[in-house]
Amino acid sequence: MTDDAQRLYGAVEAGGTKFICAVGDRGGRLVDEVRMNTRDPVSTLGDVCRYFETAAARFGALTALGIGAFGPLDLQPASPTFGFITSTPKPGWRHTDLTGSVHRSLGLPVHLDTDVNAAALGELRWGAGFGLGSVAYVTVGTGIGVGVVHHGRAVHGLVHPEMGHIFVRRHPADASFAGTCPYHGDCLEGLASGPAIVARTKRTLEDAAPADPIWELQADYLGQLCACLVLSHSPQRILIGGGAMQRRLYAKVQARMLHWLRDYVAAEELRAAGYIAAPGLGASAGVKGALSLALGAMD
Amino acid sequence: MTDDAQRLYGAVEAGGTKFICAVGDRGGRLVDEVRMNTRDPVSTLGDVCRYFETAAARFGALTALGIGAFGPLDLQPASPTFGFITSTPKPGWRHTDLTGSVHRSLGLPVHLDTDVNAAALGELRWGAGFGLGSVAYVTVGTGIGVGVVHHGRAVHGLVHPEMGHIFVRRHPADASFAGTCPYHGDCLEGLASGPAIVARTKRTLEDAAPADPIWELQADYLGQLCACLVLSHSPQRILIGGGAMQRRLYAKVQARMLHWLRDYVAAEELRAAGYIAAPGLGASAGVKGALSLALGAMD
Repeated sequence: MTDDAQRLYGAVEAGGTKFICAVGDRGGRLVDEVRMNTRDPVSTLGDVCRYFETAAARFGALTALGIGAFGPLDLQPASPTFGFITSTPKPGWRHTDLTGSVHRSLGLPVHLDTDVNAAALGELRWGAGFGLGSVAYVTVGTGIGVGVVHHGRAVHGLVHPEMGHIFVRRHPADASFAGTCPYHGDCLEGLASGPAIVARTKRTLEDAAPADPIWELQADYLGQLCACLVLSHSPQRILIGGGAMQRRLYAKVQARMLHWLRDYVAAEELRAAGYIAAPGLGASAGVKGALSLALGAMD
Repeated sequence: MTDDAQRLYGAVEAGGTKFICAVGDRGGRLVDEVRMNTRDPVSTLGDVCRYFETAAARFGALTALGIGAFGPLDLQPASPTFGFITSTPKPGWRHTDLTGSVHRSLGLPVHLDTDVNAAALGELRWGAGFGLGSVAYVTVGTGIGVGVVHHGRAVHGLVHPEMGHIFVRRHPADASFAGTCPYHGDCLEGLASGPAIVARTKRTLEDAAPADPIWELQADYLGQLCACLVLSHSPQRILIGGGAMQRRLYAKVQARMLHWLRDYVAAEELRAAGYIAAPGLGASAGVKGALSLALGAMD
């Protein structure tokens, strides 16, 4: 037991604008952490590998590495491009062999998943999903991402969920806005992401006046997402974070979720305070999620 | 191995109008099968238990029993009403202790899940999902039910998925129909179930003329369900059956799914023939799904 508890693992939160690399243990404690700007893949992944080489010299050999990354990712073990970032619009990063390049350089087992799946796993292990078997993690920012865990394992399937792009019904007060999603126009992300808020109000949600109708729109659209999550995944808790989520929205989103469900799903938990909540790991949800990936399967 | 292969299991497909009881083995072969009309819970479950007592006398002791049932069901092991049918509108069946009453009477381990989750598991083990890790099973009939399996296990979460009630966008040619769902009016089930088809056309889909606009509506609404399944669960295959599904719809539903996804999810499999297909176990999908439950977890 002591031996396991002392093992150290590497964690990478791979984002479109920054990478966070850290070293941590099975208890979710981070012993070191650095941030670096996302450049081209070769430079960035070179920086990542150099960080972990230095870290191993300082703290001792690492057991494994977890990467929670922006996507879409190929997570099919049998695929020739397993572990790659695939069709991302991010310049230079299309078809990047994330897992393979880090594994070859460091010689460690590397466990990859989407940033949101990783965060959902981290929340289940150490955060606001502790003790639960299923949780959904939603981030509302430049895009809208959703990660889901069932029976302690992240959902992949053919690719991985992309619930930011579900089609919600238009709020009557929002009929004329075309939406900002380059693929779908007015899908959820096109109506409720950070850029969609700015496109209509010329300011971020944080700066919106309390009486601004944008609050009602956000509550309704995110409430529809939560209703769809309950109908499609029935998670035991829904955690929502990200730069375009604000504390005063949680109760409103839950009220709109209940409005859309119309008492069809008979579970008192849906009405309980905290069914829709903020991530417990705060700004560390991403990197601790990656650490959780490094530890391997739960149970 | 021979010992395991010779073991026999009980299977119950518990439906609102009929119950199918069967005895089968690990290979999915049924050695006996009976159908009975659904009456009140005491009479019906009494019939079920008598059948299995007789079957055990004929074929030898059974190892375990699986029940795939109409719902909603309480599938939380820690709940005081675990194994119950909960808030069903079916007269007399509300709060019926399905698992407990059968277990107490027969003294066998009883494994319960929703009819659609059971069918999804059966398809994965012996049918059109064979060899896959994830599959969605959709039935379109009096209602619309969806079961989902990931990593070889059915999705439950807080309750279990109820994707028949997601909110789809209205087809422009269907703007005036109120929908038939008593809870939501025009959710998917309210627009695309058997009763919704009859309410608009005064006939079943089977009897609709090839040029009837109902085909286009059904294809669009079921296509939206499939798009939502891809975005929320990313299943490796979607199987659609039920009395209100027709063979000529599969290709149209897939085309509408792709229309709604607009190339956002980059996976060739979505375009492949057979991504949306009929259940491989046909009319036995339900009872073989229940048999699959009796066998316990896969892998």
